[in-house]
Parts: sequence; C-alpha cells; structure tokens
Amino acid sequence: MEGSSEKRRFTKSSLIIGRQPVIEAIESGRSIDKILLQTNVSGENIGRIRQLARERHIPLQAVPAEKLFSLTRSNHQGCIAFAALLQYVDLQQAIDHVVGNGQTPLFLMLDGVTDVRNIGGMARTAVCCGAQVLIVPDKGVGALNEEALKASAGALEKIQVCRVGSLLKAIEDLRLNGIRAYVSGIKEGKEMEEIDFTEPCCLIMGSEGRGVQPYISKASDERFFIPMSGGFDSFNVSVAAGIILYEALKQRRQ
Amino acid sequence: MEGSSEKRRFTKSSLIIGRQPVIEAIESGRSIDKILLQTNVSGENIGRIRQLARERHIPLQAVPAEKLFSLTRSNHQGCIAFAALLQYVDLQQAIDHVVGNGQTPLFLMLDGVTDVRNIGGMARTAVCCGAQVLIVPDKGVGALNEEALKASAGALEKIQVCRVGSLLKAIEDLRLNGIRAYVSGIKEGKEMEEIDFTEPCCLIMGSEGRGVQPYISKASDERFFIPMSGGFDSFNVSVAAGIILYEALKQRRQ
Repeated sequence: MEGSSEKRRFTKSSLIIGRQPVIEAIESGRSIDKILLQTNVSGENIGRIRQLARERHIPLQAVPAEKLFSLTRSNHQGCIAFAALLQYVDLQQAIDHVVGNGQTPLFLMLDGVTDVRNIGGMARTAVCCGAQVLIVPDKGVGALNEEALKASAGALEKIQVCRVGSLLKAIEDLRLNGIRAYVSGIKEGKEMEEIDFTEPCCLIMGSEGRGVQPYISKASDERFFIPMSGGFDSFNVSVAAGIILYEALKQRRQ
Repeated sequence: MEGSSEKRRFTKSSLIIGRQPVIEAIESGRSIDKILLQTNVSGENIGRIRQLARERHIPLQAVPAEKLFSLTRSNHQGCIAFAALLQYVDLQQAIDHVVGNGQTPLFLMLDGVTDVRNIGGMARTAVCCGAQVLIVPDKGVGALNEEALKASAGALEKIQVCRVGSLLKAIEDLRLNGIRAYVSGIKEGKEMEEIDFTEPCCLIMGSEGRGVQPYISKASDERFFIPMSGGFDSFNVSVAAGIILYEALKQRRQ
C-alpha cells in the first residue's frame, strides 16, 4: 500500500524533466516540491536552477544519474523537478489575505513533524477550528504528498500553505505583523487555558519525539502545555494540536 | 512496511495450532483474537470450539485448507487460533476494579472504528485523559494488533480492554452499574460543553464514515456534537475523541 502510493507520486504528470522546463516551471510560479540534480552536474542553466531553488525555498537534492534514469527515459539533462500537489503561498501574502478579510490570524506552524498522516490530520483540524494558514519549513518536515492530502480529507486544499526557508525568520515576520508565536511543549511554561488565543497568533507544534526545537521555542512569545492525567503524558501530536486549536476556537467563540 | 507487519502478526509465537491446544488455551483464560476453522470441517472437538468461541466472544472464520497450510506446516487439524497480544478483561470485572479503586468511571467504547492507528491513538488519548476502560465489539472493529499497540505508545497495555459480543448489552450492563452512555455525532443533540462528564460515563465513538450506528445511538443516554468552525466540519475520529476526553478531564479537574 505504502509502496504503491510512493509509485503514484512519481507518475509523469508530476515530473518536470530537463533544465529549461524546470526553470520555466519555477519562473511561472508553479510550486515545486523538490528538485533532483545529478551529482557533479555542471554547465548551462545549472547555476540558475540552484539560485531559483535558493530564492523560492525549494529543496535541492544531489543524486546519482541512476536515480534520474529510474524516473524517466526522457533526456533529463541531469535535472528533474517534482511539481507540488499544492500551490504554496508567500507568507506575507497569506497574512495580508487573512487580515484583509477581517479575520484574526490563527496560524499553525509545523517544526519537524515527519509523519505525513499527522500533517494531513493537523491540516484537517486546523480548518475545522478556523485556522487560516499552515506554515511548514522547506526541510525536515514530511512531504505534503497524496497521503497527507488524503489524511487531511481535502483540508490541505482549503488552508493557505506557506513553505518557508527559515522558521525563525517566519516567526520574525509574524511578529512584525502583530502575530504572536505560541509553542506547545511538555510541562514547560503556562497551562494551555492561561493562554490568550483571541490574540492574532500562530501555534507551533514540534515532532513527537523531540518537540519544538529549543531555538524556535526561545524565539516564541509563549510556551505552554496541555495538563494531563498523571502517569502517562504524551498525546499524539495530531491529537494535541486538536485539543489546542479547539481551545482557540472556543475562546474566540466566547 | 504494511506487508511486513502483517507477516509479523502471523509468527508462530502467536499461533495456537490444532483442536486440543486451541481448546486448552481458551479454557485457561488466554485471550484469543480470532479462530480460523477449515471450511466444512467436522468431527471431534469442533462443536466444543464453536461453543467456546460463542461464549467468549471470539471471532470465528471459515477458511479453505490452503489458508491454514499457508500459516503452518504442522498438523493443524483444520483449526488455528491467534493468541491476542492483549489480555482482555470481563466488563463487569473492569467496572468493579475501577469502582473498587474509588475512581469515577470514564470509559471509551468504539463502534466500527476500523483504522488500527486511530484505535491505538484513541487508547493513548484515553489514558492521557484518565479513562480506565476501552470497550470494543468482537466484530467490525480493527484488530488490536502490533500496529495498534505501536500507535497507542504503550497505552493499550495500561488501559483495561473489554471485548464484548454486543455493544447494546454492554450499554445495558453499564447502565445497571450507574454508568451513562454518551454518543458523539455530527450536529445532533447538545453541544459538547453542555454534557456533564463528571458523571460516571462511557463515551461512544463511531467510525469516520458512518458514525455511531443508529440503534446504539438510540440506546444511549446523551447525544452531542463538537461545535466547529463553519464550512468544514469533520474532525478525524481520533482528534474528536481527544477533544471530548480532554473536556471530560477538564470538567473532572474543576
């Protein structure tokens, strides 16, 4: 099952093959999940591809030629890109859109969540609770692939998704727009119910094993935890996000 | 990955092979997930096996001989049982245990939830929120297999699990013990916050697609829903259980 969905993701329709097609796709504003560049490839346009990848926060991976040949029989010129299933939005544009609609920002940021089902599940919860924007880093987070889309029950297509090069810079950008960063962790800071979710805010959730990275946590405005029953205290990250976003929804409804 | 875990579940250590060994295992009180009986098998002890399966709510499945031979080379006599990874508890014993400990019952019943990861996730949430008992039917619910155990992060070993032949009878048994049945659904009955979770109660969650079955819902004491943000209103069942059980924990803490 897992294998076949992996296969599906590599269907030709989502592949962009060759240097010029990849450059054109990126410049046309099409969202790209990842670019594979043949190891030690050089020559025309390769510098331009590297530059575009850097500018647009597109992950770039060096792979042996065999990998590229396993994906296509076409002349790939050492470069294949995967078109994203979702159209990513620029963070500032997303903020402007939400504020322009007269909404109070409620955003969700994922730091290191790798399980695509959890990512999809959290997008679904976010939409159910009225969150408008999902922020993911360009590295270290599970792909927003078909499995994530399926787990989101369509929600990933209803929420604005921003892919950013640096979560730290994103937190700074949020702050400049009056949006506070709230980090959920385990037994650190305040209890969840003490947090004011009626403020414009962005909830940051970390990976299950490791939690939010310390430097992200340090840069945030509030740290809090969900008080649990004694003895056993680790909600699944997707369930934790549900409890917190529901608290936000509840506070905003009152 | 899925394939290999399926394989693991069929390792010899969890198989009980042959008529007499299966009878002895059941009579010794060992929990059995399922019994496979060869189609049209008859003769010594088969009647006894059928009777025990009925009495102990063990699912019985008729399979061709090839299926049994694919599981073992031993002389299976047309009968193989799968030992359960968990030790199931009798519902009345579970109730007595909770009440005897001076706790207010908070139980979780699953009606038709088939995704084993959701089952494991809900067991984990249940333990985090102080629930003491998980009630599952002997049919129509995902197996409490290794994947469910993994998703539960060990919680399935910390909560008492009752497997019952009839959810309806279980609801009756709960009622006789003063435990109320609360059904969570979509936009039916009260809003969640109006429900009194400080009472001895059992939360009933249905499958994602279909919800709690109407005859179960009808037999319950309360029906309620989680009020959501407009437009998109379907939490993942595991997230919904998290939000509800957390509400119960919160009410009980106050």
